[in-house]
Amino acid sequence: MRHHDPSVRGFASDNYAGAHPEVLAALTLANGGHQVAYGEDDYTAAVQQVFRRHFGPRAEAFFVFNGTGANVVGLQAVTDRFGAVIAAESAHINVDECGAPEKVAGLKLLTVPTPDGKLTPELIDRQAWGWDDEHRARPQVVSITQTTELGTCYTVEEVRAICDHAHELGMLVHLDGARLANAAATLDAPLRAFTTDAGVDLLSFGGTKNGLLFGEAVVVLNPDRVRNLLYLRKLSMQLASKMRFVAVQFEALLAGDLWLRSAGHANAMARRLEAAVRTVDGVTVVRPVQSNAVFALLPRQVSERLQKRYRFYFWDEHTGEVRWMCSFDTTEEDIDGFAAAIAEEMAKEQPRQ
Amino acid sequence: MRHHDPSVRGFASDNYAGAHPEVLAALTLANGGHQVAYGEDDYTAAVQQVFRRHFGPRAEAFFVFNGTGANVVGLQAVTDRFGAVIAAESAHINVDECGAPEKVAGLKLLTVPTPDGKLTPELIDRQAWGWDDEHRARPQVVSITQTTELGTCYTVEEVRAICDHAHELGMLVHLDGARLANAAATLDAPLRAFTTDAGVDLLSFGGTKNGLLFGEAVVVLNPDRVRNLLYLRKLSMQLASKMRFVAVQFEALLAGDLWLRSAGHANAMARRLEAAVRTVDGVTVVRPVQSNAVFALLPRQVSERLQKRYRFYFWDEHTGEVRWMCSFDTTEEDIDGFAAAIAEEMAKEQPRQ
Amino acid sequence: MRHHDPSVRGFASDNYAGAHPEVLAALTLANGGHQVAYGEDDYTAAVQQVFRRHFGPRAEAFFVFNGTGANVVGLQAVTDRFGAVIAAESAHINVDECGAPEKVAGLKLLTVPTPDGKLTPELIDRQAWGWDDEHRARPQVVSITQTTELGTCYTVEEVRAICDHAHELGMLVHLDGARLANAAATLDAPLRAFTTDAGVDLLSFGGTKNGLLFGEAVVVLNPDRVRNLLYLRKLSMQLASKMRFVAVQFEALLAGDLWLRSAGHANAMARRLEAAVRTVDGVTVVRPVQSNAVFALLPRQVSERLQKRYRFYFWDEHTGEVRWMCSFDTTEEDIDGFAAAIAEEMAKEQPRQ
Amino acid sequence: MRHHDPSVRGFASDNYAGAHPEVLAALTLANGGHQVAYGEDDYTAAVQQVFRRHFGPRAEAFFVFNGTGANVVGLQAVTDRFGAVIAAESAHINVDECGAPEKVAGLKLLTVPTPDGKLTPELIDRQAWGWDDEHRARPQVVSITQTTELGTCYTVEEVRAICDHAHELGMLVHLDGARLANAAATLDAPLRAFTTDAGVDLLSFGGTKNGLLFGEAVVVLNPDRVRNLLYLRKLSMQLASKMRFVAVQFEALLAGDLWLRSAGHANAMARRLEAAVRTVDGVTVVRPVQSNAVFALLPRQVSERLQKRYRFYFWDEHTGEVRWMCSFDTTEEDIDGFAAAIAEEMAKEQPRQ
Repeated sequence: MRHHDPSVRGFASDNYAGAHPEVLAALTLANGGHQVAYGEDDYTAAVQQVFRRHFGPRAEAFFVFNGTGANVVGLQAVTDRFGAVIAAESAHINVDECGAPEKVAGLKLLTVPTPDGKLTPELIDRQAWGWDDEHRARPQVVSITQTTELGTCYTVEEVRAICDHAHELGMLVHLDGARLANAAATLDAPLRAFTTDAGVDLLSFGGTKNGLLFGEAVVVLNPDRVRNLLYLRKLSMQLASKMRFVAVQFEALLAGDLWLRSAGHANAMARRLEAAVRTVDGVTVVRPVQSNAVFALLPRQVSERLQKRYRFYFWDEHTGEVRWMCSFDTTEEDIDGFAAAIAEEMAKEQPRQ
Repeated sequence: MRHHDPSVRGFASDNYAGAHPEVLAALTLANGGHQVAYGEDDYTAAVQQVFRRHFGPRAEAFFVFNGTGANVVGLQAVTDRFGAVIAAESAHINVDECGAPEKVAGLKLLTVPTPDGKLTPELIDRQAWGWDDEHRARPQVVSITQTTELGTCYTVEEVRAICDHAHELGMLVHLDGARLANAAATLDAPLRAFTTDAGVDLLSFGGTKNGLLFGEAVVVLNPDRVRNLLYLRKLSMQLASKMRFVAVQFEALLAGDLWLRSAGHANAMARRLEAAVRTVDGVTVVRPVQSNAVFALLPRQVSERLQKRYRFYFWDEHTGEVRWMCSFDTTEEDIDGFAAAIAEEMAKEQPRQ
Repeated sequence: MRHHDPSVRGFASDNYAGAHPEVLAALTLANGGHQVAYGEDDYTAAVQQVFRRHFGPRAEAFFVFNGTGANVVGLQAVTDRFGAVIAAESAHINVDECGAPEKVAGLKLLTVPTPDGKLTPELIDRQAWGWDDEHRARPQVVSITQTTELGTCYTVEEVRAICDHAHELGMLVHLDGARLANAAATLDAPLRAFTTDAGVDLLSFGGTKNGLLFGEAVVVLNPDRVRNLLYLRKLSMQLASKMRFVAVQFEALLAGDLWLRSAGHANAMARRLEAAVRTVDGVTVVRPVQSNAVFALLPRQVSERLQKRYRFYFWDEHTGEVRWMCSFDTTEEDIDGFAAAIAEEMAKEQPRQ
Repeated sequence: MRHHDPSVRGFASDNYAGAHPEVLAALTLANGGHQVAYGEDDYTAAVQQVFRRHFGPRAEAFFVFNGTGANVVGLQAVTDRFGAVIAAESAHINVDECGAPEKVAGLKLLTVPTPDGKLTPELIDRQAWGWDDEHRARPQVVSITQTTELGTCYTVEEVRAICDHAHELGMLVHLDGARLANAAATLDAPLRAFTTDAGVDLLSFGGTKNGLLFGEAVVVLNPDRVRNLLYLRKLSMQLASKMRFVAVQFEALLAGDLWLRSAGHANAMARRLEAAVRTVDGVTVVRPVQSNAVFALLPRQVSERLQKRYRFYFWDEHTGEVRWMCSFDTTEEDIDGFAAAIAEEMAKEQPRQ
């Protein structure tokens, strides 16, 4: 039974959107008959070629259920039991995964505050030391997020500088790509340009925020240094039995340009929203809009009234900063309606001045 | 693109089957528009009533991705850090989860060999001792599997006896119900009769083997004693963002009788197979057929020739015992064809005698 | 065989000192005959009264091997599997335990930068939020260090303010007291004044730095809220078999005033060193000397020459800050000799100016 | 203050004994002055030569606090995160460590019932399979105990057969040597004959049961395959700060023949006890006496009366089997007195027949 009104959309999260209809349709293709379980099916095999087209001939994709799973499985593949991960303080692995990296995998996170969610070689150096001191968990990998949790996007050169620096120091580079497609759209560059070719060793490729029902991929780019994914996935409880249904979704997403269309559209909607609210007095866009997110400051009571009309979250309860996310299914009408609502609610504030 | 031949079916695993078409169709219902992520959507809310109809008015379902996840999340909810789980040696949590209970949750498994995969109060007593000796992880929960990994099915009375015994000893009872629907069909009893009403405290309800694309539920039956599921699910990396797509599948399965039809059919196919092979000389059905599995002994070379025609697994490499699984999509023709193939391959053996 | 020269002392760490002779002598008292292992001996029983005299009638001491063990065992007793610990960024549990809190116990540390190693209610509030959001490990305990890793000492009122604040928020307070005796000497207050009576729920009492051969105690002050120590100690591999030898050392330390004499002496030596180096141009004492540590800035090459004469560590490789630790066996002659050496090495620098 | 009567000895455990006076005396040698903490002291360096004399020129000893720590640190050095350990069901790591191997290190134990506590290549094969199946934790190491928890002793040939078999299968061999000295005395062989030379890759050397106050050693015999001990020890909370006090105890034990004298004496006392009770009707020695333990069956009420006179434990509550342990300080008079007491208590039973 349908329990919801599919015409309602908000700006809370790209996870609030459903699945892209082309993705949903693809499930039927993979259905019927018997296929070997746990990843030895024909769909998982076939889609490897698609990943290699995007990430280079040595890439291999291991499907998992969700983003936390992708990150924690991947990071285990590049750390010893005594290993540590250097990451931005704002990284999803640090602030939004209930401590799963620590609790499931025993990972020590060595975090660095950043102005914009982006690490740099200099910021990395604040934690990149003490490799032979057993009193300190050994820094073995740098983890960056692309696009970042703050809506910013590393340039190709920035990623490369981080990878070069990490590699010189004997560390590997992991990339949390929950919104990797948005980065490709922003950079107008092929996926491999700012991943494989820039020196990234492994990444989490986000399918869910890009329009899948569920499903992420740990993509190994440097198989010489990243190993044991099959075991680490299984012991981390991220092995799907009917994996054909993950694989075929990724094929629907990545074989053509659906991934890029969807991400590019979401980015465009964020820019449209940014442009609209920049004309509203009292609303300040506080971070660069380089993906599908707009971060803004406006009077708290305005935000609270707006939340009765559209769902979205406060990003920072202390400052009152809000986050507005666009997704593949956000329409121009949604943006225009939301921008109008913002203007309306702001207008009610004028008499107070 | 379709990469497989949907007419091919085998007897390897109920995970080799795809999704039931009614389940697949339901996904569309839940798609479109925005729904709150991470389980606060309308589908997850609505399906709770369905679970309560089956498991009693205090039941609550928490969806997870897979069976290992369901078991490990659930068992953490009923153990302290120093806790242990009493289980059959053949339990899936002991032999088929790569040590995830130990590695993810630090659970100590106290196992007992059983003749048929079923624990009894007497067998439990072999590990149920030493509750106040810190040298021994404290036995806090008994975990049983219904139907068992060996295809057997606990009766209502057997489950109740285990629950009574465990509760008297201060332990709780967890039930791994990866094939719970098959048990209901075998017992011809409502689900709550051999779970809630028999004293089970929490269970894993298997959706995948019952015809979902993916998705299992940790069902809390005794909310007085089982808590913190939200946190334990998240830290165990089993929280789906677009949870509406899990919930709606369970609604499709459980709101009507699809779950029972599918399981009953799979069981019937197993019995049909059993009946057919009992007529073949040289093939011995070695365990009671009380669900959708047939375990048999036949000459190893016959099995190997058969495997070239139909997929199935050796259950025990040492003895040569094989396991043949039926699923919701197994047809009578499949059974008859397979039984004929068995007879044919056996026939080739006759001259040797 | 003696392998070292017992006349050599330095300023590297209070762990470089040996055991106090009175402690060593006490071992003989406990030796001979048979005593129940694993903590049920007469010495462990007897010393409980001593702890109660210091920490109040409800206190109970559980001996462990080392400080990391004490902290990790204690913190597990006040956290659920999904729990988090709020601590200063400079806390030993965060920077000096190889990630053991994360790796052994799955603890998420929520850290806050501090100017002087001391938390305050305001600083705690930067991490004290989100108790019912499963995406964030739940803050369940505040951990403070007394005296801190930076040589500072919380006042009684500061500890009480933290405890009141934490308790109001539903959290408990853990105190890492690796140098608790030094705090008592600095504050000139009984131990319970700034622990039990100030609201601390449990603490690690440091024996080793206070003159034991080895041995620390987890002291439970609030038995209503802190439980399961026996199990948590054992599973954390911190249970000594011949525990009488830990207990008798603590009796030697705490039954009389050895603990306070030793700590007071170490503190006095630090103040003597501070006074001496304050007269040396070019050496700056950069932190308040409130325990047995002096932190100083001086030219790096001077420090390096000094290190050839006396062992000590750079505290911060970047700034060149050094740490000089005094212990129970530091003599006035040691201080005067070291201060003279500092002056000598600084004097060699003058021509450069 | 002395709280106990040093003339009282029993037969409960070799951990009930205190420290050998020569060991206690050695502590004084190492005391005084400053020594680098955490294992870089002169005593830890010096004793390496002693270990190499016993275990071969490539051996290296890493001191830890207790036996559980030694086993869990060592086993982590020879397993990946997805690794499993094959062990006897009766192994200390399985039954007496509160699940620390699982809870601290995530180790999956694959256990095998044995008649006498000893594994064999055949018994190992029951768990040695499935190396490339991610559904099963990978068997990477065989752990044996010498002498075993049941008082039996592997011959040199038996150890070698296990090592050869394990190595052929690509696994390593760990030896829990909590009573390794007793084995040397029983076998009348140098330590390396049944460890290094037989193919053992690493072991736990038990100091405590051999007369130390505390202290065990992880001894790496095959440094090509066993690595990262420094980190694994620290993260497992087994790093002593004043390690000179562990090292000097081992020097006292191992530099001369104290280790062998003590163990040989304990073994002789066990044999004396065995000989004495074999003459008492109604008492059956049920296991070979190959170390310092005697396992016996006698009427339960006799055991219970005896326990009021001498401390000892029931080994198996179900069967009534008891365990009598001798230690380095057990005297001939102790044995004769105990044997007389057994005879007396048995005599009271006669009228019942």
